[in-house]
Amino acid sequence: MQVAADEPDFGNLQVAITGIPMDLGVTNRPGSRFGPRALRAIERIGPYNHVLATAPVFDLRVADIGDVPFQSRYRLELSHDDIEKRMRQIVDAGVAPLSVGGDHSISHPILKAIGRQQPVGLIHIDAHCDTSGAFDQTKFHHGGPFRNAVLDGALDPTRTIQIGIRGSAEYLWEFSYASGMTVIHAEEISGMGIAAVIAKAKSIVGDGPTYLSFDIDSLDPSFAPGTGTPEVGGLTTREVLELIRGLKGINLVGGDVVEVAPQYDATTNTAHAAAQVLFEILSLMVFSPSVGER
Amino acid sequence: MQVAADEPDFGNLQVAITGIPMDLGVTNRPGSRFGPRALRAIERIGPYNHVLATAPVFDLRVADIGDVPFQSRYRLELSHDDIEKRMRQIVDAGVAPLSVGGDHSISHPILKAIGRQQPVGLIHIDAHCDTSGAFDQTKFHHGGPFRNAVLDGALDPTRTIQIGIRGSAEYLWEFSYASGMTVIHAEEISGMGIAAVIAKAKSIVGDGPTYLSFDIDSLDPSFAPGTGTPEVGGLTTREVLELIRGLKGINLVGGDVVEVAPQYDATTNTAHAAAQVLFEILSLMVFSPSVGER
Amino acid sequence: MQVAADEPDFGNLQVAITGIPMDLGVTNRPGSRFGPRALRAIERIGPYNHVLATAPVFDLRVADIGDVPFQSRYRLELSHDDIEKRMRQIVDAGVAPLSVGGDHSISHPILKAIGRQQPVGLIHIDAHCDTSGAFDQTKFHHGGPFRNAVLDGALDPTRTIQIGIRGSAEYLWEFSYASGMTVIHAEEISGMGIAAVIAKAKSIVGDGPTYLSFDIDSLDPSFAPGTGTPEVGGLTTREVLELIRGLKGINLVGGDVVEVAPQYDATTNTAHAAAQVLFEILSLMVFSPSVGER
Amino acid sequence: MQVAADEPDFGNLQVAITGIPMDLGVTNRPGSRFGPRALRAIERIGPYNHVLATAPVFDLRVADIGDVPFQSRYRLELSHDDIEKRMRQIVDAGVAPLSVGGDHSISHPILKAIGRQQPVGLIHIDAHCDTSGAFDQTKFHHGGPFRNAVLDGALDPTRTIQIGIRGSAEYLWEFSYASGMTVIHAEEISGMGIAAVIAKAKSIVGDGPTYLSFDIDSLDPSFAPGTGTPEVGGLTTREVLELIRGLKGINLVGGDVVEVAPQYDATTNTAHAAAQVLFEILSLMVFSPSVGER
Amino acid sequence: MQVAADEPDFGNLQVAITGIPMDLGVTNRPGSRFGPRALRAIERIGPYNHVLATAPVFDLRVADIGDVPFQSRYRLELSHDDIEKRMRQIVDAGVAPLSVGGDHSISHPILKAIGRQQPVGLIHIDAHCDTSGAFDQTKFHHGGPFRNAVLDGALDPTRTIQIGIRGSAEYLWEFSYASGMTVIHAEEISGMGIAAVIAKAKSIVGDGPTYLSFDIDSLDPSFAPGTGTPEVGGLTTREVLELIRGLKGINLVGGDVVEVAPQYDATTNTAHAAAQVLFEILSLMVFSPSVGER
Amino acid sequence: MQVAADEPDFGNLQVAITGIPMDLGVTNRPGSRFGPRALRAIERIGPYNHVLATAPVFDLRVADIGDVPFQSRYRLELSHDDIEKRMRQIVDAGVAPLSVGGDHSISHPILKAIGRQQPVGLIHIDAHCDTSGAFDQTKFHHGGPFRNAVLDGALDPTRTIQIGIRGSAEYLWEFSYASGMTVIHAEEISGMGIAAVIAKAKSIVGDGPTYLSFDIDSLDPSFAPGTGTPEVGGLTTREVLELIRGLKGINLVGGDVVEVAPQYDATTNTAHAAAQVLFEILSLMVFSPSVGER
Repeated sequence: MQVAADEPDFGNLQVAITGIPMDLGVTNRPGSRFGPRALRAIERIGPYNHVLATAPVFDLRVADIGDVPFQSRYRLELSHDDIEKRMRQIVDAGVAPLSVGGDHSISHPILKAIGRQQPVGLIHIDAHCDTSGAFDQTKFHHGGPFRNAVLDGALDPTRTIQIGIRGSAEYLWEFSYASGMTVIHAEEISGMGIAAVIAKAKSIVGDGPTYLSFDIDSLDPSFAPGTGTPEVGGLTTREVLELIRGLKGINLVGGDVVEVAPQYDATTNTAHAAAQVLFEILSLMVFSPSVGER
Repeated sequence: MQVAADEPDFGNLQVAITGIPMDLGVTNRPGSRFGPRALRAIERIGPYNHVLATAPVFDLRVADIGDVPFQSRYRLELSHDDIEKRMRQIVDAGVAPLSVGGDHSISHPILKAIGRQQPVGLIHIDAHCDTSGAFDQTKFHHGGPFRNAVLDGALDPTRTIQIGIRGSAEYLWEFSYASGMTVIHAEEISGMGIAAVIAKAKSIVGDGPTYLSFDIDSLDPSFAPGTGTPEVGGLTTREVLELIRGLKGINLVGGDVVEVAPQYDATTNTAHAAAQVLFEILSLMVFSPSVGER
Repeated sequence: MQVAADEPDFGNLQVAITGIPMDLGVTNRPGSRFGPRALRAIERIGPYNHVLATAPVFDLRVADIGDVPFQSRYRLELSHDDIEKRMRQIVDAGVAPLSVGGDHSISHPILKAIGRQQPVGLIHIDAHCDTSGAFDQTKFHHGGPFRNAVLDGALDPTRTIQIGIRGSAEYLWEFSYASGMTVIHAEEISGMGIAAVIAKAKSIVGDGPTYLSFDIDSLDPSFAPGTGTPEVGGLTTREVLELIRGLKGINLVGGDVVEVAPQYDATTNTAHAAAQVLFEILSLMVFSPSVGER
Repeated sequence: MQVAADEPDFGNLQVAITGIPMDLGVTNRPGSRFGPRALRAIERIGPYNHVLATAPVFDLRVADIGDVPFQSRYRLELSHDDIEKRMRQIVDAGVAPLSVGGDHSISHPILKAIGRQQPVGLIHIDAHCDTSGAFDQTKFHHGGPFRNAVLDGALDPTRTIQIGIRGSAEYLWEFSYASGMTVIHAEEISGMGIAAVIAKAKSIVGDGPTYLSFDIDSLDPSFAPGTGTPEVGGLTTREVLELIRGLKGINLVGGDVVEVAPQYDATTNTAHAAAQVLFEILSLMVFSPSVGER
Repeated sequence: MQVAADEPDFGNLQVAITGIPMDLGVTNRPGSRFGPRALRAIERIGPYNHVLATAPVFDLRVADIGDVPFQSRYRLELSHDDIEKRMRQIVDAGVAPLSVGGDHSISHPILKAIGRQQPVGLIHIDAHCDTSGAFDQTKFHHGGPFRNAVLDGALDPTRTIQIGIRGSAEYLWEFSYASGMTVIHAEEISGMGIAAVIAKAKSIVGDGPTYLSFDIDSLDPSFAPGTGTPEVGGLTTREVLELIRGLKGINLVGGDVVEVAPQYDATTNTAHAAAQVLFEILSLMVFSPSVGER
Repeated sequence: MQVAADEPDFGNLQVAITGIPMDLGVTNRPGSRFGPRALRAIERIGPYNHVLATAPVFDLRVADIGDVPFQSRYRLELSHDDIEKRMRQIVDAGVAPLSVGGDHSISHPILKAIGRQQPVGLIHIDAHCDTSGAFDQTKFHHGGPFRNAVLDGALDPTRTIQIGIRGSAEYLWEFSYASGMTVIHAEEISGMGIAAVIAKAKSIVGDGPTYLSFDIDSLDPSFAPGTGTPEVGGLTTREVLELIRGLKGINLVGGDVVEVAPQYDATTNTAHAAAQVLFEILSLMVFSPSVGER
């Protein structure tokens, strides 16, 4: 596995793929610290995306720049500092970050770097809203990154849509509603159809800079058992691919794929699905005004 | 695991959750005797059902009263007697039984207790009709509980709907048709849509007392590999959740979730799905005239 | 497991089921050499197909005639010779071959035997077009059987439809388009619906003699993890069953089920799905003019 | 899998291998009903035993005569009757039975058939003595076959040695000591060495007719996880092979290998070890005065 | 699972079994936070230890008092405080603590509580010495508890023996040698024999108060795959049982079983072995002057 | 994974570690083509070998030079040519090759390169002698490399010892005896002890140049399930480590670790054991006159 130097040369990259092997923010089953490793072991993804008609590794200047270097494997908040530092380097170099978690708490320091100048919009595909508050003496756990990002002024809740939400913790996510986020539950999707979800997402985020955060537990556990907090009744891979591909043209400024825990992934289906989604987000970046024009 | 006393105090419960760890009625792969244990190990289900807008463990007086005590682990019919005895205690106390199997043969003694005064209606979600006759010197196997219940006067076949039926044993289930049950095959559901299935189910059972029996093999094996007689081409978890939630308001007097065999459930997805369904049925009970008003 | 004699007596069979335990043509993960063994271990499929209203093992004179005898387990092209020889024996005896792979390269020698007199049509359900050219010093790998069959005059590309195509190798399959095959991608199926796919397939193959080749990787990996080149975003078992059953009445002259690699099939779901599909194809043969009338 | 006719023709066999797929006698995890199937799937055992210098399938007239036909899959005692009936047929034909369980309760009806004329001696390799009394309304469970056989006059306890005993149920097996059996615990074997165990076994059983019963849970669970009642601290495969081979020349009149539960055997190591032990026992039969001279 | 109250009533216990579900100190694979849960799911251990001739749950006043309550699941050092607090309560009540980890870092706060008045001796069975220094900004990781305990004056290194040591990190453990600990490597054990190891251990710890810490990775990974830092070439379960039982009579004041990570324990063999070892340590306590005489 | 250039710069290496991902020579289960990948994924081996007192990656100039480049994944003999070509490059550069298979057939072309000037001696640790003749139209399968090497004049059979032999194919290996090889069966090792095996091995190979070939199936399947032709009754990891370490000082000129098939290695124990053995062989090279003195 690549080991990132302290001062990586992002050269003239348009997109920097970064591993963030940190799962100190989980509430339940750990393991996503090995997510980057699991995705790097998946072969046979790419080069050509025939739906989006791009071969992104040829159409973009993109590279895997290795993992975020951590000062300690034992400190949640310090790890967030390390992530933010690396993300600032990437963003300041004018490069779009595409990250592989790690638990979902990593999206908070990423958004702090990306949304430092102005809050960004968000397309968030997940089983959980991840907008709950402090818990067990910290607010930096994986159940709260988007609340934190809003409160830090890095994320615009009115330009945020959360898709695939389900499970039994709705009462923890009132911040989503209170702050003006749009929430589409998993059970609404059968009736709406993916085309309507796409249309809604596009209308919410508009033309502004937008981040895409994909939690693998948005998929039903039959497609993605290898994760820490599975919820039955989720999306199919075909729905997710249709959804992401339908976002072609949005002004994507970064993205992540998180919560792949290979310990629970006997068939490697989870890592495989995650790698495909990573490829799809990378493909979207070819068509993003913020990325493609550089 | 809880061990039920011989004379449990049902106190003023509205719903009694009972484990029935008995799989002596299987035709093929044993293992569902460990179903209750598998479901009790699942965490992260509940407390809030945001679709049905209830937190059933708060909205109902409900408890896990432990497993049915069996006189012998070697006797199918004697075990049925033990089940019926315990179920009578529950029903006679005015409590709605919600059971976790165990193989599907357990539904027969449960129905005998519930339908003792008058036959009940049935919403039966399964890959198999389970209305076949005697076989291998017994009629009490897991392929026949609903035939037995009709013949015992405990189940009203004209108020019975069987949903998700498939596989290659249709010729064994002529009793379903002969007795007037309504059968919806798995392959019909794509075309009908779940909303139509719900409407049909509601029209069949009407306002009368109704039992809900959920066999985990109604789900496709990709969602629920951990069962004894899997059949490909089954329901998705999202369809099942939509279906059950759509039954809000029916006059539910009891229910069960059966045939979870954890030996074949490498990812625990099967137990997880079963636990979620159990939670959904419990949620329905909040809105059942027979349960909620007590 | 049955061992075929060098000169099997096909007697007056209508359909000969043959195992072809050969995976020397794989590009990636080997293992489908054990596919026939895996399918033979699946029980509980049949006898009755209630959708097609046939019990094919009663309605047809059909038998498992064992595996193709191979001269060597180390020679791809020689194995193809062995397959073609056995298939010629079957076809020359007026028997329809129904084969279980093995990797998809086996379809080439099968088609050479079946299409010797005149090119046949093809319904090809797969994640990959399998029409790419020579590679690694051979054109007989599992990525090219249908290109080879067209070039050998055994397959009519204008009567060929490929269903379920996806993945990232579209650029390898220009032969499909150049030769006039019809390609339906996996992502088109949600929108079209299976009924339209069936109609399209029937219109393409018409009344002429038609072969049905089913690659298990057409299914999404959640349904069929046990295969060598899985691609996320695939078909469901319910879609596949509806699709195949919808072909009732086509002039089927043979079929195969390929690429089941049991090493990657922890739950046996893959072998189970494959055995069900085999049963469905066999059921179709009851209604095929070429088979049923013998 | 072979299906035995009601009246199999044992012809002039010396040894009849019989599957006994019955596990109704288990106290804990079911599954050994699939033991015969699991062993038949193991290949690559034999033909030559270079330690014992025999190729038993050539040196003996031996065949797999299929499974014991059962009247019902639901009746423990009735199944024992079926086993005893088939075993009587075998024994009365002068054939030595070599059986594959199934749970250990099957040894009781087997011994009843073999020891009908005179009680036999026993070499019993197991983690448990299996000499406990009635329980849960039956004495025919898998924890008591050797007590039952002694009380029925079919087994001579003074010519019985039990090897590999351990676990926490010693208090249940006082019958072993009271009746005069010799017990060698697993923890004694490191100190004694296998040679001494062999010598002890030979001195106990002497020249008289002797049965060999091998419970796969005699092996440590690291070698044989696929069983119903594993006990850590067990024998190694190398010890077991040395032990059994060391018995060359004893007057073996029958044997069994029991308690293989493939549901718990992720690597198939358990079935593999069991098949090797079956082969070793068969090899011993070449040198048994009772078998070899026929 | 039991949930411990903040102020549990240790009543007149002699031994308190405590779960410590904390793995924030791991260097590599997390997961042992679920160790207590995994051990509680193991049944069929006990009641009788026939080698030590005791049924410890009858011979001692012992109970599972539940898990250590943690203030946060995100703080390593704070969790150590929580552990030490609970252990002080136990020790101050005159009760011997028997703990189930959790990662090995938990032994440090346990020893701080036990050795507060005077340093204790230690029998430490492990693949690793766990005496390395600060790393990644903390010294409280699972590679250093015994160094920490010595430096805190809670552990007497001259009365410490470490058994089963191996792997490639010997250079990290110079503290063991420098402080006067006795180290027996795994590769020495074949030659020494367990009896000599026992004698050495007894001579090192003498009659003084002694703690026994058992890391499941002392076992070879074939016996215990379910752990975070496996090392090939380890002990067998039979050796470990002989070793621990051979310590009968030492002045045991507490013990632990750590590092069981059920995510990596497909067969549950690891949890099973750990539960057996827990039972053996509990059995030793019957004969400990410090425990038995109370 | 590293990809070797066509003309790698071996610089001034002493040892070149090479992956040989080729399994076209297997007789049974394929999969060892992924052996190099599996070993490269194992971490936590090294740096220090405290028994041999060396940190070989510091004490030697050693590097992983990537995989042998193959012209085709479909040609056994051509692959052997590719292997021999690369091995000649390594040997001609005065570098000792340490290879990771792949199936055991790779040892033949390796030995052809190493023994080109003069035949070498061999320490061969394996369950099988691998000296059988042509089969299925080739002699280059994985059952015959050492016969081939002797007949090619690259291997001196009188300086060859084969350790761990067992299974049922002894009759295929008469070449071992006829040519003067020394064979130590697995069942002899318990009695001899490893020290005697080491002494025997050293006396056979003497001071001359010697190759060490380690087949992972020498280990018992409980230690190494992930291989193509497992045989019960094998060596333990502790025995293997003691054996290899005992060879310190032999004149090692190359080595290999073969037959790791990760598809069958659910726990990764097999790859882990193989990586440890690779490390031990590398450690031996520090002390080899042929390697160390360069």
